[in-house]
Amino acid sequence: MDYIHTMPARALPVSIPYDHHLHIGAIIFPAMDQIDFTGPFEVLCRVPNSTFHIIARDLNPVSDEHGLLFTPEITFREAPPLDVLIVPGGPGQIGVMEDDDTISFIRDCAAGAKYVFSVCTGALLCGAAGLLKGRVWTTHWASHHLLKEFGAIPIDERVVVDGKFISAAGVTAGLDGALRLVALLRGEEAAQQIQLAIEYQPEPPFDSGTPERAPHSVLFKARAASRHLMETRQEQIKRITGSI
Amino acid sequence: MDYIHTMPARALPVSIPYDHHLHIGAIIFPAMDQIDFTGPFEVLCRVPNSTFHIIARDLNPVSDEHGLLFTPEITFREAPPLDVLIVPGGPGQIGVMEDDDTISFIRDCAAGAKYVFSVCTGALLCGAAGLLKGRVWTTHWASHHLLKEFGAIPIDERVVVDGKFISAAGVTAGLDGALRLVALLRGEEAAQQIQLAIEYQPEPPFDSGTPERAPHSVLFKARAASRHLMETRQEQIKRITGSI
Repeated sequence: MDYIHTMPARALPVSIPYDHHLHIGAIIFPAMDQIDFTGPFEVLCRVPNSTFHIIARDLNPVSDEHGLLFTPEITFREAPPLDVLIVPGGPGQIGVMEDDDTISFIRDCAAGAKYVFSVCTGALLCGAAGLLKGRVWTTHWASHHLLKEFGAIPIDERVVVDGKFISAAGVTAGLDGALRLVALLRGEEAAQQIQLAIEYQPEPPFDSGTPERAPHSVLFKARAASRHLMETRQEQIKRITGSI
Repeated sequence: MDYIHTMPARALPVSIPYDHHLHIGAIIFPAMDQIDFTGPFEVLCRVPNSTFHIIARDLNPVSDEHGLLFTPEITFREAPPLDVLIVPGGPGQIGVMEDDDTISFIRDCAAGAKYVFSVCTGALLCGAAGLLKGRVWTTHWASHHLLKEFGAIPIDERVVVDGKFISAAGVTAGLDGALRLVALLRGEEAAQQIQLAIEYQPEPPFDSGTPERAPHSVLFKARAASRHLMETRQEQIKRITGSI
């Protein structure tokens, strides 16, 4: 199988010449989870010899799930060919799963990209675009069981690399995935340089970041709070995958 | 001394009644480091019974250091009294250090706030507003030596709590500090709930997040790259602190 998710980061190959100017782009959409996008942006806007594009259906401001407004720079139609495509997630993923413009853009852009990076439930958008079939992939813990609906091989890891496809688990995992991606694009030292600049030496004050670590009562409430969203996701995916 | 930074998070007191609707607000300004703001936003917009305000001098879009546009919701003049004031940093901190509107807003708002949370070099803005005198504080590693110019007691920790003042080290430390703050506002379980929702179980792929951990060559280049910025900060602070 064509994947290298078990290979230590140190050994990852760098295949892109340094003098190749990299076009890195993220799609944004309404009700996304903003740090699925701003986490990778923080890291990848610092990649040497690169341009970061913020891409959407049109140029109207886009609100994240909690009302934070972002301004796209370029439309799907006008975006240049990308070396790296970033696909964030969040509850708003449901709203664009059946949007032809968004899904076609992901499919077409991914075909030519050197790397595709899905964060959180951006994995499900990549699934709708047919990218998951036969590939190892990860996503947010609460949606992890949905990966198999797209023919993926679900892996319970924070960052998974399968050839040119990189997936990060939920939300903040985009930071870890983005640093892995920098190492692939420009080498390990470039990633270390960025990690130091953003002082990424995390110290979560509590031990509640995954279903396995969270106290039982915390997990129980989280599952209850997301039940309706999960049912909606599941029903939509069942409907969509009949036609892929 | 009135500080509790050594107290374990579990033991932190919650002093705010649950039925008190919390007004949480962050200032934003040009050339800030966006994740100093979006990290805490990701956590604090989920605090039960609260409203998050995005505050600036005026309502024009504000670009972060790398061109990401944010849209303020309310001006300094119109902002309601805040329970929590968040002050991000980044290179743009230099540009507002001598801006009366910004510094007066921080000073006045902090006086009535239940908590003030500085992230990265937002610490220096709090310094210009006179908040650091005699208090323990932290900031980004490259600017840590500047804290003493404002009469602070510098502490080399990722998150420091001194009474109602919470400070986070560089950039991504805002996530850790924000979770500490949620525990202070709404209790430990609320913080754990948010940590699980955003799957904050970080796994940095490299060990380069602080000057002590980074490879020597990485640190050397980082210091060289930030030398001019540090000199500019130092000169400005010397000039300002003469008049505080």
